[in-house]
Amino acid sequence: MKKRQISAGKFLNEAPEYGSSFSRGLAVDLPGFSKLYISGTASVDENGKTYKPGNFQAQIEKTFLNITKLLESENASWQDVVFTRVYLKDMSFYDQMNSARTNFYNKLNLSPYPASVCVQARLCRDDLLVEIEAQAIIKK
Amino acid sequence: MKKRQISAGKFLNEAPEYGSSFSRGLAVDLPGFSKLYISGTASVDENGKTYKPGNFQAQIEKTFLNITKLLESENASWQDVVFTRVYLKDMSFYDQMNSARTNFYNKLNLSPYPASVCVQARLCRDDLLVEIEAQAIIKK
Amino acid sequence: MKKRQISAGKFLNEAPEYGSSFSRGLAVDLPGFSKLYISGTASVDENGKTYKPGNFQAQIEKTFLNITKLLESENASWQDVVFTRVYLKDMSFYDQMNSARTNFYNKLNLSPYPASVCVQARLCRDDLLVEIEAQAIIKK
Repeated sequence: MKKRQISAGKFLNEAPEYGSSFSRGLAVDLPGFSKLYISGTASVDENGKTYKPGNFQAQIEKTFLNITKLLESENASWQDVVFTRVYLKDMSFYDQMNSARTNFYNKLNLSPYPASVCVQARLCRDDLLVEIEAQAIIKK
Repeated sequence: MKKRQISAGKFLNEAPEYGSSFSRGLAVDLPGFSKLYISGTASVDENGKTYKPGNFQAQIEKTFLNITKLLESENASWQDVVFTRVYLKDMSFYDQMNSARTNFYNKLNLSPYPASVCVQARLCRDDLLVEIEAQAIIKK
Repeated sequence: MKKRQISAGKFLNEAPEYGSSFSRGLAVDLPGFSKLYISGTASVDENGKTYKPGNFQAQIEKTFLNITKLLESENASWQDVVFTRVYLKDMSFYDQMNSARTNFYNKLNLSPYPASVCVQARLCRDDLLVEIEAQAIIKK
């Protein structure tokens, strides 16, 4: 099936720049709809640096921003997101994550909320506190 | 695409009741089929309390029951499940999980079994021992 | 929807042989395309034994081989893979994983790369160092 790489290079560098062979996202055109696969996305900037080490609130906001920009490159938005998978470096961030996510979703008037799962997992860099992957479905 | 929240409130409370902004599941109507995304589901009851802290067998049965009820709200069943992702608080529960799952699936005469993955992960509450997410595909 | 089990028994045993009730993969025929769900796959051989305990490079190559054979049983290839989820027993293997994956993908001329996520997670056996799940989409 026809697929293409999703990028948001002004906000988030490309993974191969630091030797990691994955696309930041992939769009797949299927009969009647397109599926967007957003890779695990963290608080990384356009130069591939960790944005705001140690600051959970700033990191999750940057993570949401990066995903937003990846979605927008396909003319999609959070309204189209059907599932998110949230990985926290430490489950002690759970309440902060919930609070930040609720604020973010409610500003967007998301309804219904996406389905989701959240677990603790050590991430690829020790200064990243949260990573989120997402799937979206849009009409072609 | 048209999507709606999946609920099973008699068995499992809604996540926003304790400040967590996700749907227990989401149904998406696509051309010729519907996709059901079941969120990470654990041994939680209709009041949002942990059901049977410390009891792995009771917790996985409650988890299966909760997912069953979420599926049923869309007239779906475990026969329609294509993938499960199993998170265990401790991998020492692996044999108990396998045994409980085999019993559960075989009572339902599931064939073929869903594809799956199982890893250890710390969950959102320390008294939850297992959490499972699932995806199902049904004909419209 | 019509679905069938994916197997590659000459390379990788069937999970129920050791009491685990999941399919190594599942193919689902949908309107205009088929979706392949490849279960969490590790360095396991045709007898269900861990292949090359302690050797990360050998294990990830065997993991890629097992997934390749599962894909091939449905006439699919890595060109069709849209997402991978990589679980490392220890994040200290991250660079080795990246290097092995880049080599593997580039030999196959994969473009674009699949979307992906990678987290640390304890796996079902302590001698397994890496486990990968994958999703592929093929034209019918």
